[in-house]
Amino acid sequence: MGRRPHPRNAAGQKSSYPRLYGRHAVFAALDNPERVHRKLFVTHDVAAELVIPKGLAVQYGDASDLGRLVPNDAPHQGIVLEVEPLDNPWIGDIFAQGEGNRRPLLVLDQVTDPHNVGAVLRSAAAFDALAIVTQDRHAPAESGALARAASGALETVPWCRVVNLARALGEIGEAGFWRIGLDGSGPVTLETALSDTRPALVLGAEGEGMRVNTREHCDVLARLPIAAAMESLNVSNAAAIALYAAARRS
Amino acid sequence: MGRRPHPRNAAGQKSSYPRLYGRHAVFAALDNPERVHRKLFVTHDVAAELVIPKGLAVQYGDASDLGRLVPNDAPHQGIVLEVEPLDNPWIGDIFAQGEGNRRPLLVLDQVTDPHNVGAVLRSAAAFDALAIVTQDRHAPAESGALARAASGALETVPWCRVVNLARALGEIGEAGFWRIGLDGSGPVTLETALSDTRPALVLGAEGEGMRVNTREHCDVLARLPIAAAMESLNVSNAAAIALYAAARRS
Repeated sequence: MGRRPHPRNAAGQKSSYPRLYGRHAVFAALDNPERVHRKLFVTHDVAAELVIPKGLAVQYGDASDLGRLVPNDAPHQGIVLEVEPLDNPWIGDIFAQGEGNRRPLLVLDQVTDPHNVGAVLRSAAAFDALAIVTQDRHAPAESGALARAASGALETVPWCRVVNLARALGEIGEAGFWRIGLDGSGPVTLETALSDTRPALVLGAEGEGMRVNTREHCDVLARLPIAAAMESLNVSNAAAIALYAAARRS
Repeated sequence: MGRRPHPRNAAGQKSSYPRLYGRHAVFAALDNPERVHRKLFVTHDVAAELVIPKGLAVQYGDASDLGRLVPNDAPHQGIVLEVEPLDNPWIGDIFAQGEGNRRPLLVLDQVTDPHNVGAVLRSAAAFDALAIVTQDRHAPAESGALARAASGALETVPWCRVVNLARALGEIGEAGFWRIGLDGSGPVTLETALSDTRPALVLGAEGEGMRVNTREHCDVLARLPIAAAMESLNVSNAAAIALYAAARRS
C-alpha cells in the first residue's frame, strides 16, 4: 500500500507536519513501525533514557528551545517528534479483525475537537475497540494535542477516515455490526441495545449530535440514563461509557 | 454565610475575576441565584435573546471586542460574564442531601486540569451526583475554560473545596459513604465494589493516581476492566464510567 501524499491545506499548499510531544505520545510513535519519523527534538536528559532509532535525525536543545516548536505552553516534557501522518487503514481489514469476536467499532460523526478525538482513541485502546471511523472532511488532523490526549493510542488504534460516513455505515452494517446511535431521545437504553451484539457505537458532534443521514443509517438509537437537568455528556465521556457498557457484558 | 474574600494569588495581590464565556456557561450563571454577577459583555444579537437581570452592568461590543476579553481563540459565542467565584459549600450540608438516597459523591485528588474538572462537573450533573470534593490547594480555580467544559454544571453541582482531603475522607466515611478509590491495581472490579452502597468515588490525578494518604482513606480500591495495553483512562472518562456504573444499579 503506498504512502498517502503529504497533506495539503484547502489552498493546495503543503501544511506543516504533525509534531508530537510529551513522553507517552512520542515513545509510542517511536515504537510504531508504521510511523514515519522525520526528526526528533530532545533534551540531553530525556535522550539519555532513549534508544534513538538508527538513521533518525536528532536535534538537541533545552526545554525552552523545544517550547518554541509546539503551541503555547504545550507540555512537551523535553521531547518533540516531527512525523508524517499515518496511512489510512482499509475498512475491510478492520472488518476482518472483528470476525469471530465482539470487539466494538466506534464511529464519530463530525467530532472536530482534537482533545475529544484523542481521549476517544485512549478509551478505545483501553477497552480493546477494533478501530475508530470518522469522515475525512469533518475530523481533526493528527496533531500534538490530539496525540497527547490519546496517550499513545494514536499509534495503536486503527483510525479509518472515510469519504462518506453514511456509505461506510452501510458497509459496517453489511459486515455484521449492530449500529447503535447514541442519542438522548433514543427509545431504548444503551444496555438493552447492546444485548449480545457486535456493536458499532455511533456518536455525534457536541451540540448538534448526529446528522439526520447518520441517524438513519443506525439500526437502533439508544440513550444513556442521564438526568433531565443535563442535555448531554461530553462526547469522549459518552464514548467511554459506551465502551465500558460493551466490555462489561463479557 | 459570608462571601469568601476575593481570591488572591501567591504574591498576595488580587487575582482577576473569572470570566465565563459561551452560551451554556453564561446562561447557567445568569440563572444561578447564588452567583454574583459583576459585568456582562455581549453582542447586540445575543443580547436580543436574553432577559438581562436588572442592575447588571452591561457593555455591548462586537465579536472581536469580546475576543479580547478571553484567552486566545476561546469560543465566546458573543457573550462573556465576569463573576465572583461561588461560595464554598459546607460538607455537612452535602451529607444532609445524601440522607436516604444512594446519590454518589465524587472526590478528586489533585486533578488540576480545568477541562477535566469541568467535564467531571458535567457528568456529575448528568448522573445526579451530590457534589464534587477537591483539596483547595490542588484544584483549579473557577475559570472560563472550566465553566465551558462543565456546560452549565459549575452552577448546579456543589463543589466543596477542603483544606485537607484525608480528613474530609474521614468525615465522608463517618457520614456513611462507602469510599471507593479507582485504581488500576484494585483487587475488585468497580461493579463489585459498588454493590448496593452509597458510594464516594475517589479519583486521583492523571499520571500519579491517588496519593498514598488518599488511598489509605478508602474502604476499597476498585479497578475498571481495561486492557493491559493502556495504563489508565483520562480522569474525566473514568469518572463518567464510575458514575454510569453507580447509576445503572437502580
